[in-house]
Amino acid sequence: MIRYLYLPVVSGRMAIFEPSKNGAMEFKLTAKASNSRARAGILTTGHGVIETPIFMPVGTAGSVKGIHTRDLEEDIKAQIILGNTYHLYLRPGIQVIEKAGGLHKFNRWNGPILTDSGGFQVFSLGDIRKLTEEGAKFQSHIDGSYHVFTPENVMDIQRSIGADIIMAFDECTPGDADYSYAKNSLELTQRWLERCFTQFNNTEPKYGYRQSLFPIVQGNTYADLRKKAVEHVKTFDADGYAIGGLSVGETVDEMYEMTEVCTADLPENKPRYLMGVGTPVNILEGIDRGVDMFDCVMPTRNGRNGMLFTSEGIINIRNKKWENDHSPIDASGTSFVDQYSKAYLRHLIISGEMLGAQIASQHNLAFYLWLVKTARQKIVNAEFKTWKNEMIMRLKERL
Amino acid sequence: MIRYLYLPVVSGRMAIFEPSKNGAMEFKLTAKASNSRARAGILTTGHGVIETPIFMPVGTAGSVKGIHTRDLEEDIKAQIILGNTYHLYLRPGIQVIEKAGGLHKFNRWNGPILTDSGGFQVFSLGDIRKLTEEGAKFQSHIDGSYHVFTPENVMDIQRSIGADIIMAFDECTPGDADYSYAKNSLELTQRWLERCFTQFNNTEPKYGYRQSLFPIVQGNTYADLRKKAVEHVKTFDADGYAIGGLSVGETVDEMYEMTEVCTADLPENKPRYLMGVGTPVNILEGIDRGVDMFDCVMPTRNGRNGMLFTSEGIINIRNKKWENDHSPIDASGTSFVDQYSKAYLRHLIISGEMLGAQIASQHNLAFYLWLVKTARQKIVNAEFKTWKNEMIMRLKERL
Repeated sequence: MIRYLYLPVVSGRMAIFEPSKNGAMEFKLTAKASNSRARAGILTTGHGVIETPIFMPVGTAGSVKGIHTRDLEEDIKAQIILGNTYHLYLRPGIQVIEKAGGLHKFNRWNGPILTDSGGFQVFSLGDIRKLTEEGAKFQSHIDGSYHVFTPENVMDIQRSIGADIIMAFDECTPGDADYSYAKNSLELTQRWLERCFTQFNNTEPKYGYRQSLFPIVQGNTYADLRKKAVEHVKTFDADGYAIGGLSVGETVDEMYEMTEVCTADLPENKPRYLMGVGTPVNILEGIDRGVDMFDCVMPTRNGRNGMLFTSEGIINIRNKKWENDHSPIDASGTSFVDQYSKAYLRHLIISGEMLGAQIASQHNLAFYLWLVKTARQKIVNAEFKTWKNEMIMRLKERL
Repeated sequence: MIRYLYLPVVSGRMAIFEPSKNGAMEFKLTAKASNSRARAGILTTGHGVIETPIFMPVGTAGSVKGIHTRDLEEDIKAQIILGNTYHLYLRPGIQVIEKAGGLHKFNRWNGPILTDSGGFQVFSLGDIRKLTEEGAKFQSHIDGSYHVFTPENVMDIQRSIGADIIMAFDECTPGDADYSYAKNSLELTQRWLERCFTQFNNTEPKYGYRQSLFPIVQGNTYADLRKKAVEHVKTFDADGYAIGGLSVGETVDEMYEMTEVCTADLPENKPRYLMGVGTPVNILEGIDRGVDMFDCVMPTRNGRNGMLFTSEGIINIRNKKWENDHSPIDASGTSFVDQYSKAYLRHLIISGEMLGAQIASQHNLAFYLWLVKTARQKIVNAEFKTWKNEMIMRLKERL
């Protein structure tokens, strides 16, 4: 068994990079696929560089569930993680995060962080919210207290959390909205976006390093609305652009189609972030369509339920067939947890042992990061399309 | 922030030690306190050496809840862990463990393991068990199926699990038993002990290294029964002796008193194991009374509930006073998790985030191992009693 020697040294990328208030967000394309919209790039933030395409582990309430920041960096090789404004605002609350000196100091992740604006959470609370021109009134799922999110205060809250990349406050339209609803909703989102940028431009970062605001392209599954939305967000000359309102019930083909519609017109020289996506196959298809950044709870949430993603396919570790399989979880896995056996992991998951959720999550996250890193290499080596087509067949296998 | 460099090297003690079938369990006293019964020793097992006094983290169902084996060894500096026969027998079951090649291979802990016999669990199931001369019939708490444990099959099961130290199957008498019940119960335990040793001596280890069987001294809080029990177990010339049936509702003073009664007559040259104990204060008092080995779920179970043990006292991290305390959990802590702030840990525990349970457990276990290691140093340096009296005042503080 491999043992790890813990040397307390200053390691690689993160410790050397000096956060700088004046450092602008830079995005440089280093390679483009010829028969695909896939690109390889380097994104420079106030807390370090990110090689794109990249997957962002989700640390909703201030931690990536079950994963130490040390393992996020060293074992999973995450380069940027996501936090959620809605959750952090409710608990621990903005005052605690400010007193810590921002989220990076609070959770001890010293690399780049992106915060979602809370738009999706507010709207997934369904009936209990009131939506007006001013903003969205909602009830805390924790204690039922009422709160209002507006474009302005969501910018303020995200200034206080201190993520390197912050998101616009938008209306995440229900996936099955009809055209009229989707159009009105998009127009509200657009008016809110103007207010987001106004507030953003009238305020300063709080902790000594620059933050970037990304608009979100909405428009449901209506291509003309999506195109209108793209034209609108471009007028802000933002540091990057997100595609929102997908993976909310539409078909996978619709998701890919709308992604293509958006990336066709979004600026080449800015990163594109496809929010809430997805499975390993979705990610490769997104990269093929010109997406640079992804986030999804699937590796962690499904991991806790015993679903493992591997380069040979999907394993449902609860299945009886693994009961006496004492081979490593993933012989080509990159995480130290891959040394545990399938039988052991199955036992832990079925017994409800916390370590099972940890192992599965850590394996899946390491796999996702391996996947995008390999995709990047393939783009750089002009082999992406062939490799992607072959990988997708393997990734879909049920083992 | 300190970063850890993961060098896959063969580390320290465990990788170098060669498990040997013929290696006898050795116990050597290296120091004894002059004004106390405390001793420092070295216990050699089929999977490595243990420096006593030692605390054994509890890995009930095959994992120490929330802790990777890597962190058990490198960060917590555990030297031996505990597994539980009752739980492992029910899930994953003996067949799976045998197919793995024993528990060490299954959970990838390559150091010494001790298994409790399941006696305590069977008896803590209360009314649903039937107790006869043959053994104990019980219902699985998982699916209600019926099973019978006898001295013989509990030896067989522990041969299959493969722990280095296995425990006798005994009746763990209720803490409030009257004298007559306690006497009859002790006599049953003694008859069962004879059968345990007969079965043990008629069987072989399964995996190529020696196992040792420890008897358990019962007798409730009746000094004369305890003395009788000690005399009986000594006739087996075992590799070590456990004191059971304490920390089950009697007062702390009764626990200490019974411990003294037992250690007064147990052989000096064999390790003494006080089962299910205890708080940091209990452990120091136990060491003072000549105990060498301890196990308890308190650091992990109470940790998951937000109770932290430190050298300056006890912290209830849920307390509002820590909400904005951004100082490290324990400035003199030995675990990497001690770098996280109190405010962050409080947030995680209150939010029900898994990482909170992990951090608190890991801190507590590292603290327990630090405590016994420091006690050992003090014994070796002839400073134990003075240090213990001072430490106990600090350990009892509520911060």
